[in-house]
Amino acid sequence: MRLADLGERSGVPLATVKYYLREGLLPPGRRINATQAEYDESHLRRLRLVRAMIQVGRIPVATVREVLAHVDDDSLGRTVRLGAALWALPYPAGEAPGTPPDAEDPSRAAALVLVDALLERLGWSIARELGDLSPAHRALVATLATLHRLGYPLDADDLLPYARTMEQAAVHDLDRTDRLPTDRERAEYAVASAVLFEPVLLNLRRLAQAEESGRRHGL
Amino acid sequence: MRLADLGERSGVPLATVKYYLREGLLPPGRRINATQAEYDESHLRRLRLVRAMIQVGRIPVATVREVLAHVDDDSLGRTVRLGAALWALPYPAGEAPGTPPDAEDPSRAAALVLVDALLERLGWSIARELGDLSPAHRALVATLATLHRLGYPLDADDLLPYARTMEQAAVHDLDRTDRLPTDRERAEYAVASAVLFEPVLLNLRRLAQAEESGRRHGL
Repeated sequence: MRLADLGERSGVPLATVKYYLREGLLPPGRRINATQAEYDESHLRRLRLVRAMIQVGRIPVATVREVLAHVDDDSLGRTVRLGAALWALPYPAGEAPGTPPDAEDPSRAAALVLVDALLERLGWSIARELGDLSPAHRALVATLATLHRLGYPLDADDLLPYARTMEQAAVHDLDRTDRLPTDRERAEYAVASAVLFEPVLLNLRRLAQAEESGRRHGL
Repeated sequence: MRLADLGERSGVPLATVKYYLREGLLPPGRRINATQAEYDESHLRRLRLVRAMIQVGRIPVATVREVLAHVDDDSLGRTVRLGAALWALPYPAGEAPGTPPDAEDPSRAAALVLVDALLERLGWSIARELGDLSPAHRALVATLATLHRLGYPLDADDLLPYARTMEQAAVHDLDRTDRLPTDRERAEYAVASAVLFEPVLLNLRRLAQAEESGRRHGL
């Protein structure tokens, strides 16, 4: 298809499509003459993914480029490719950017103990072994340390039911991912699912709170 | 306690405490002489809440002020006070800011049908009745419309288990809230819980994905 068709089928304005091409977020089409190029389904899929990251995930262009570099790296094995792409995404930090991890900080120490106890009860041995090599682990510890510091401590019992639900969700996610035909498509899907589902989850939580409050105390 | 003690006990830098006072996010202390004022536990609690909203929630100062105006409004009944405070928080939008709701948009129409079917299956009659009066409902519809538009449609079966978990969480949250002695403290707690728990949830999800991926395909 031509560039204009790509815009039309994706619902992305043509000027935006051209911007993504210039920024290298969308690979160039196959040249068919001096002024025109041909685009295919892989361009459409990539365009939707870029749009999702920027529009829904509010992810900076430089980060999108970094994530896609891992998605496109055919030299990586399946797990490393998928992991590298996910790890390049921004993490919900729960602390001021640039706060240095302070080993002496009692809130941080409490958070580390809590996360370790939680992972042990969950039987998440890989996450436990990876420890703070994993950005999700680091971000979780930082968030729980902040809550502790602010006087809102949580314990493993508070976290366990949420973690179990997220585990079930991850099984579904990986089932879908593994059905895709190529490692590139698998990595693309994993990124899309990480980014797109987060606002859904948070809005479901807010809606549940409103429902329960209304049940107890009326409208 | 004096201003310096307030800073020390909260872990918030003194310059930041003074900034919150100037901006009206923290009520003034009780004057004890020309140059000094006395602060109490309610100031400490408020300071922690403001810190949580700004540091963890990345909520703009003007929005924090608006949320707190509802928290402090003794003229409101319990549910309205709590609801108004929560509704003033930013919602994870899942769409470009300022996108007008377009009644003709097929993705939006599909999302409306999906949310209605979901709420019916959940038995969330209050949320269903409120409909798009509720910002959580509007944001959920907008997010699902965006996913649909980007070629990642979800259905009620995808959403139901998450919604059920969030419902259980809301019951726990409201149990805790209802035990607090004053409506002001209840509203403060509801805001803190909405803001602080979101990064925890998202990081648990990412960690679960890494665990499951490692289990299937090794490290």
